[in-house]
Amino acid sequence: MDIAQRLEQELEQAVTRATGPECPPRLAEALHYAVFPGGARIRPRLCLAVARACGDSNFVAATAAAAAIELLHCASLVHDDLPCFDNAGIRRGKPSVHCAFGERTAVLAGDALIVLAFEQLAIRLALSPDRLAPITRIVAAAVGGPNGICAGQAWENEDKIDIVNYQRAKTGALFAACTMAGAAAAGLEPQAWQTLGYAIGEAFQVADDLRDVAGQAQDLGKPTGQDAANHCPNFVDELGFDGAMQRFEHHLAAALAAIPPCPGAEQLGLQITAVSRSLVTGLSARQAA
Amino acid sequence: MDIAQRLEQELEQAVTRATGPECPPRLAEALHYAVFPGGARIRPRLCLAVARACGDSNFVAATAAAAAIELLHCASLVHDDLPCFDNAGIRRGKPSVHCAFGERTAVLAGDALIVLAFEQLAIRLALSPDRLAPITRIVAAAVGGPNGICAGQAWENEDKIDIVNYQRAKTGALFAACTMAGAAAAGLEPQAWQTLGYAIGEAFQVADDLRDVAGQAQDLGKPTGQDAANHCPNFVDELGFDGAMQRFEHHLAAALAAIPPCPGAEQLGLQITAVSRSLVTGLSARQAA
Repeated sequence: MDIAQRLEQELEQAVTRATGPECPPRLAEALHYAVFPGGARIRPRLCLAVARACGDSNFVAATAAAAAIELLHCASLVHDDLPCFDNAGIRRGKPSVHCAFGERTAVLAGDALIVLAFEQLAIRLALSPDRLAPITRIVAAAVGGPNGICAGQAWENEDKIDIVNYQRAKTGALFAACTMAGAAAAGLEPQAWQTLGYAIGEAFQVADDLRDVAGQAQDLGKPTGQDAANHCPNFVDELGFDGAMQRFEHHLAAALAAIPPCPGAEQLGLQITAVSRSLVTGLSARQAA
Repeated sequence: MDIAQRLEQELEQAVTRATGPECPPRLAEALHYAVFPGGARIRPRLCLAVARACGDSNFVAATAAAAAIELLHCASLVHDDLPCFDNAGIRRGKPSVHCAFGERTAVLAGDALIVLAFEQLAIRLALSPDRLAPITRIVAAAVGGPNGICAGQAWENEDKIDIVNYQRAKTGALFAACTMAGAAAAGLEPQAWQTLGYAIGEAFQVADDLRDVAGQAQDLGKPTGQDAANHCPNFVDELGFDGAMQRFEHHLAAALAAIPPCPGAEQLGLQITAVSRSLVTGLSARQAA
């Protein structure tokens, strides 16, 4: 079984457990719907790629960490799409969870996915207790306060926004968790892997802005032009299309330079480059215009 | 320092960490507001009482478990009060979190409190890794799917409600986590402590119904008569005041009978009796009428 299949199987096992026979059917359906079919699974794939580069060979801890990160990402999408936030109708090419199941079920599904992420770590790492605490802390820091996704999203409620903390918390923190948890799963000191994660997060943020302006809705699984519609800042507005592409390449180069020494550093660099570039392939200034 | 002070200190440390200098100020304020000042802290006190009865003497794991349970309880109150659920304006004698800080901040505060609960366990139990996995699993099972609080709340969205699963999941599961986590923190096998927790949860559910009908708003910190207003089932409607009081005593007796053999069983029984009875002391059929 390849790594991608292991990840899907891990997610399937987790969601199946959370939606056991006693679960209210509507919540059970919403939990499956929020996780499957997935998007590109960029974050968990990054976590697994780092673990492999660090010489991890059994992948039990890395797969659990990757699944937990993906479950938390899915939870954040469900809650971000709620009417009180982005009020988004389409996600991953289908109606968002609150549109399909109602707002109450969407709130609860997001909550249950957060819980499930930590439960999955505890179940899968029960036999590697020395890995459980550090990986749980890495993952929790990426989603809670003061620097995780909740904090990032909460900057949108402030009169004065701290744009650096905002973007690092809302997007960068979970990428940093991917690289740090991948290293920790392999038994390495995770701190050295944080800079790489944040740099990938910054490249991803610019790529996301480029796709919102110059991408195709069917590739994104959601409408384009959302930043303009929601009056959100977008790097293409600020820098122009070519300037944003240069900024993307700058962050990608910074990421590659930040890969710590490890057995699979070269292969990891190639993977990060390929996945990152795939996000902006085919975009052109003509589309953006 | 007594146990109650240790618990408050543990909660204070957790919330302070989650609201560090980089946290958006509004979210930080909402997190403090949601946790302090507390209600009766019945659940964490139960967890600590069980740990003590089981012979625990250092309380590090028990205090972390108790704090995690209280943080999850606070999170559930914040989300339950949201406009799409109970739309409750008053909680613990002051405006509910969404009334004080807005709906967006309330959603994020609830999410961040869930994350914080698991982070607190990982931080405090890093040096007792053999306790971390089982306590995390106990706590997660009490709040996620298929049998935890999220599932309990989600039964309210179903056309056909499974009333037994509904009440056990919405109220009983977290009480069961209190007794089980208290035992696990003391190094005992937790399963034997589940029945006690569910029985206390059932007594608490009846007491809660009695207080809603016959209590005083200033004692509850929220308006009375909410079940009638929200068309929720209430044991007083079903059984009458005296019948509900008998049902309460029945569940309390069942709880006392379910205390597993342990060094402090007698003292624990007295504590459970005192705390449970305090909930219904002073209520009278005349008030209910």
